[in-house]
Amino acid sequence: MSGPQAPEPTLEGQADASAGSPDEDAAEGIQHSHRMLSFSDALLSIIATVMILPVTHTEISPEQEFDKSVQRLLATRIAVYLMTFLIVTVAWAAHTRLFQVVGKIDDTLALLNLACMMTITFLPFTFSLMVTFPEVPLGIFLFCMCVIAIGAVQALIVLYAFHFPHLLSPQIERSAHRGLYRQRVLGIIVRGPALCLAAAGFSLFFYPASYLLMAMVIVLPHVSKAAGWCRAQLVGPREPPAHSVEVFTFDLHEPLSKERVEAFSDGVYAVVATLLILDICEDNVPDAKDVKEKFQGSLVAALGESGPHFLAYFGSFATVGLLWFAHHSLFLHIRRATQPMGLLNTLSLAFVGGLPLAYQQTSAFTKQPRDELESVRISCAIIFLASIFQFAIWTTALLQEGETLQPSARFGGREHAFMFAKLALYPCASLLAFACTCVLSSFSTAIFHAMQIAVPFAFLLLRLLVRLALASLRALRGLVGPVLARPAQSPLLPAPC
Amino acid sequence: MSGPQAPEPTLEGQADASAGSPDEDAAEGIQHSHRMLSFSDALLSIIATVMILPVTHTEISPEQEFDKSVQRLLATRIAVYLMTFLIVTVAWAAHTRLFQVVGKIDDTLALLNLACMMTITFLPFTFSLMVTFPEVPLGIFLFCMCVIAIGAVQALIVLYAFHFPHLLSPQIERSAHRGLYRQRVLGIIVRGPALCLAAAGFSLFFYPASYLLMAMVIVLPHVSKAAGWCRAQLVGPREPPAHSVEVFTFDLHEPLSKERVEAFSDGVYAVVATLLILDICEDNVPDAKDVKEKFQGSLVAALGESGPHFLAYFGSFATVGLLWFAHHSLFLHIRRATQPMGLLNTLSLAFVGGLPLAYQQTSAFTKQPRDELESVRISCAIIFLASIFQFAIWTTALLQEGETLQPSARFGGREHAFMFAKLALYPCASLLAFACTCVLSSFSTAIFHAMQIAVPFAFLLLRLLVRLALASLRALRGLVGPVLARPAQSPLLPAPC
Repeated sequence: MSGPQAPEPTLEGQADASAGSPDEDAAEGIQHSHRMLSFSDALLSIIATVMILPVTHTEISPEQEFDKSVQRLLATRIAVYLMTFLIVTVAWAAHTRLFQVVGKIDDTLALLNLACMMTITFLPFTFSLMVTFPEVPLGIFLFCMCVIAIGAVQALIVLYAFHFPHLLSPQIERSAHRGLYRQRVLGIIVRGPALCLAAAGFSLFFYPASYLLMAMVIVLPHVSKAAGWCRAQLVGPREPPAHSVEVFTFDLHEPLSKERVEAFSDGVYAVVATLLILDICEDNVPDAKDVKEKFQGSLVAALGESGPHFLAYFGSFATVGLLWFAHHSLFLHIRRATQPMGLLNTLSLAFVGGLPLAYQQTSAFTKQPRDELESVRISCAIIFLASIFQFAIWTTALLQEGETLQPSARFGGREHAFMFAKLALYPCASLLAFACTCVLSSFSTAIFHAMQIAVPFAFLLLRLLVRLALASLRALRGLVGPVLARPAQSPLLPAPC
Repeated sequence: MSGPQAPEPTLEGQADASAGSPDEDAAEGIQHSHRMLSFSDALLSIIATVMILPVTHTEISPEQEFDKSVQRLLATRIAVYLMTFLIVTVAWAAHTRLFQVVGKIDDTLALLNLACMMTITFLPFTFSLMVTFPEVPLGIFLFCMCVIAIGAVQALIVLYAFHFPHLLSPQIERSAHRGLYRQRVLGIIVRGPALCLAAAGFSLFFYPASYLLMAMVIVLPHVSKAAGWCRAQLVGPREPPAHSVEVFTFDLHEPLSKERVEAFSDGVYAVVATLLILDICEDNVPDAKDVKEKFQGSLVAALGESGPHFLAYFGSFATVGLLWFAHHSLFLHIRRATQPMGLLNTLSLAFVGGLPLAYQQTSAFTKQPRDELESVRISCAIIFLASIFQFAIWTTALLQEGETLQPSARFGGREHAFMFAKLALYPCASLLAFACTCVLSSFSTAIFHAMQIAVPFAFLLLRLLVRLALASLRALRGLVGPVLARPAQSPLLPAPC
């Protein structure tokens, strides 16, 4: 029915247009890496958030007090979650940089990448094993082996790609210093696993040394960066070496690919938003036998029992959704994501991943009014931290606005005020809720979730108010100096509606 | 350190280049919908697979026989999973078509889309409620309300977008028949919810009518399509109406956006691959107290206990990963995804989603050797179904190869044999394993998982063999007719290694 002239969907069309001749490449067995990278991002974002599950599923029986042992268990699990998140993010960043060097893939590289993903998915398990048994060599040993396996697969990918240079990114492919590149890239990749190999060795007879070595893996690049910055401040910027323009791609100080930051963040938000519904679908469909015996066959009563769960779910989804929305708006105005912005984004995401914990906290304790205040406070703290780090991304971007932001979002740009309002909404709202818990002696979780659901409407209201304020400002200016004001109008002109 | 002339990462650069002036758009509050759509795809793919969790977590105590009541429970849950998967896929397809009409978004549309997502995430819950209590009006009522809510939000999105036509896809924006479009699009969106509204009404006094109405929602488009096809066969193709070229975009018979099919499939594969590690991270980190008491402090013994789990995990990941790889290779050669291909893809994905069940089956029963054969058979059946539907996509594409496939994958193209081998690998391997279970009296799950892990290597071997066969064929031809054969060589020339 449809003629062959039916136009392609927009984005596909774009990809085709920019890829030159996709069929020609496909015929040579070479493929653009876009889809493989999205798949990897999805996998990694799920893996990063996985360790929140043991935290949220920590069982606290209703009689049991929130006592020391439970607190310690919970604290350990939260620490494991945060550390795992950071470790997986480091692995993800390394993966991003690797595929900034390797521009195209073929079947072998796709399979190697799958092997790399498989080893990375095992990181959270080995890490939590290591934390649970800090003094047993096996835990350390397995974790180090995992890191070494990842390094080995990545080194294989690099060697393979440099052996078939048409797989490299065009810039490196054309470079005369290709051998130098390979050396450098391999050096960066192998550094961490080499330290871990030493750590695995030490784990057999003196385990504290292992931890020291592993800490070095994380700290080293930052130390060298800080040292470089200090030197630059003292002595003035170093003269760039002769081939510096070409070496940049794999430099740790370089901005990450904005698209992959977005994809990874999307994955985390999507997983967090749905972790809640997973629990609800599994636990809150009442059993037919139960309904007959406990509720005299009334389904409404049975569902009413888990009513607070649903309210909490909608509240949480609204929060996660709106935080995603703020992130989306923010990155729309960001031109490139620098290293500090990437770090702040990771921290923000780590707390977003903690939101199911907030949900669990506020929905599990609804029967003990004494604990409600406590759980609402924890939720507020998590939301505040998640949103304040988003705000920090924006502040950091403003420091180098010429390089990092689109003109409309810079100081004085017409979207600047909006962005500020969007990003300040959640820090303010969560602080306000926290303050309420301190003033009021009873602050029900139901009210809290109702507030969460109300925030999107508050946002729409805010939007309207900002529009009105701008319009009235314009009208005022029009009255004061109709001729003078006219050139200044256009950047403040509200968007249609 | 980095000069501002450092080039953008490739894909971002592409997006910028093709979007004309992104900053201009951003300044008007209009945004390209690409990221929002990926986020929606990620959410929907997680939601589609969520109902596999109750299936895999069906508890069967070791003493308990695999008796009638457990079987019935399991069968119900599997049916719920498959139906939910199909329903969510239908919602996803509607979402895809909707955003083929709405080309750009602004803040309001992004928020409306989040609301739409929130209602869709509630579909699995209401559906499983309806199935658990088929005769209680409330279950039906809630499910219908959910569908109506989705329809209402989508209608709002359409109305909003048509009110600000710059948000529509360029083709519709420029069209003279815009009012007609709106009518038509709204009609398609409202059809399903209207039927559900009637079903919700009937649920109060005569519930079988509700089921009939809901069945109509799914069947109607297919019936009308089949009727159209029959008429076309009998009477000859209908004359297209005057403005048919413009109406196509929202036509149910039109191919889906290939990019979104890929994104949705990626999401499903990523979730399925990681569902397994979620369980492992939560359940298989041994407890410090347990290790001291039960295993005399030996962590190795404690981990050895759950050794089969790890083997099963690696086997499963290898299978899911390689199925993704086959899917990836297949869609690389596909130019557009027609309606039947989309359906086959959905079915394939539904069985891929069943793979965690296969894992659970093969890893839960390892202590009862009598059941091992049974569970390996189930795994083989699931893998066979998942891969045979992939193969069917390929076969269907070959039927209209001019329209659906890249030239290199068509009959006689140089990638044709490879694609065939890739896609036939899993159906053959799973059939073989199934046959083994019939012949051998004891077929251990460990062997099965080892086989799963071996398949990628088998694939690499296969690749090498095909290369060798082609090379020898070429050499042979070279010997027989060195001059005649030369023009035929190039399409069969193996890609560099």
